[in-house]
Amino acid sequence: MNPKGEIGARVRVSVTVAGLSLEEYVEKVKAFHGYAAPGMILGGFMVDVALKHLPENTLYDAICETPKCLPDAIQLLTPCTLGNGWLHIVNLGKFALSLYEKRRGEGVRVFVSPSKLEGFPVLWNWFMKKGPKEERDLGRLVEAICEVGPSVICHQRVQVQEKFLKGRRHRGFAICPRCKESYPADDGPVCLGCQGQAPYEEPLGSNPKRHYGIEED
Amino acid sequence: MNPKGEIGARVRVSVTVAGLSLEEYVEKVKAFHGYAAPGMILGGFMVDVALKHLPENTLYDAICETPKCLPDAIQLLTPCTLGNGWLHIVNLGKFALSLYEKRRGEGVRVFVSPSKLEGFPVLWNWFMKKGPKEERDLGRLVEAICEVGPSVICHQRVQVQEKFLKGRRHRGFAICPRCKESYPADDGPVCLGCQGQAPYEEPLGSNPKRHYGIEED
Repeated sequence: MNPKGEIGARVRVSVTVAGLSLEEYVEKVKAFHGYAAPGMILGGFMVDVALKHLPENTLYDAICETPKCLPDAIQLLTPCTLGNGWLHIVNLGKFALSLYEKRRGEGVRVFVSPSKLEGFPVLWNWFMKKGPKEERDLGRLVEAICEVGPSVICHQRVQVQEKFLKGRRHRGFAICPRCKESYPADDGPVCLGCQGQAPYEEPLGSNPKRHYGIEED
Repeated sequence: MNPKGEIGARVRVSVTVAGLSLEEYVEKVKAFHGYAAPGMILGGFMVDVALKHLPENTLYDAICETPKCLPDAIQLLTPCTLGNGWLHIVNLGKFALSLYEKRRGEGVRVFVSPSKLEGFPVLWNWFMKKGPKEERDLGRLVEAICEVGPSVICHQRVQVQEKFLKGRRHRGFAICPRCKESYPADDGPVCLGCQGQAPYEEPLGSNPKRHYGIEED
């Protein structure tokens, strides 16, 4: 068992991930993501495949179809981050991503073909989430991913919908009359938080400033 | 004008951001986010305030109430990233974040008090998105943020809703009979992409494998 997903000595394939050696990429993954998760290794290969199929010097944005693992591979290997607005999450629960020209939307989508995993039970069980997570040997999984490499990754041309293209409208901001914080004015007369979408329990009433016990310093 | 938000020589305050000097933090911001965006500087101070109000040795997750800038400050300064599942985005369009104990949900929420920005027109106009973005002097803005520092940031205790706490159910996966990719089985008989939620144009029919022109190599 190798629960932390260390890259073992058995991996002897020479692979690069978006211009980095596998070892350099794994170091970045550990520093950012916490550990060398199998999804981060597979994700690195997927970003690599997408980049190779994008015309050179393309100014691109990214769409990731899952919030799990894959967004971090995109954030580490491309200029696209969630916070800078170049990475969009559309949660379809699918381990797939697209890189696309940010004004016109022409791009490439990469995904894993489950049929290509059928000959690799370790990979299949992990990818299809079969069996208890605790019993997985992450080190062996990572080695298996490195061995199959890009051979299980497919790509297809896509045209991204207009709402994901650059040039979106700048939203006006207002002060919410209830919580006194700023919010996008077109969300309504009060902010989405005061409309009941805040992710916090509200045990003491409807005015968050009172019942959360606001403190300033 | 200093459109790239360089930290000018005028900033002479000694500030630290989650244990880093401001200069170290700005270097990290440039490498990850692309440039020293004002929202990243303010966001750094906000994460710093949140960390200071969390009991020592707390194992925490993060909620960010906007996808803009702030998630990157969290990802750079804490172990929480989108991909490792410790950062949750609840898009309320509000520049606010919470750090909370990941099993019990007790946490601290930090936000900017607009009323405290009223004496600083440069900050007010930026925070409330007044006037054209192109005319903003990012360098001056960053300096103004460094000068006011944490004084415009408020915090409050929160109890995060149960659905954001650790121990969520592992979803079963299946092969979508339409696109042949894997997807969370409880999304329905076909994946959310094939249910019409894919972010791509579908000009040629309903089978994405055919009209996207799938290529493998």
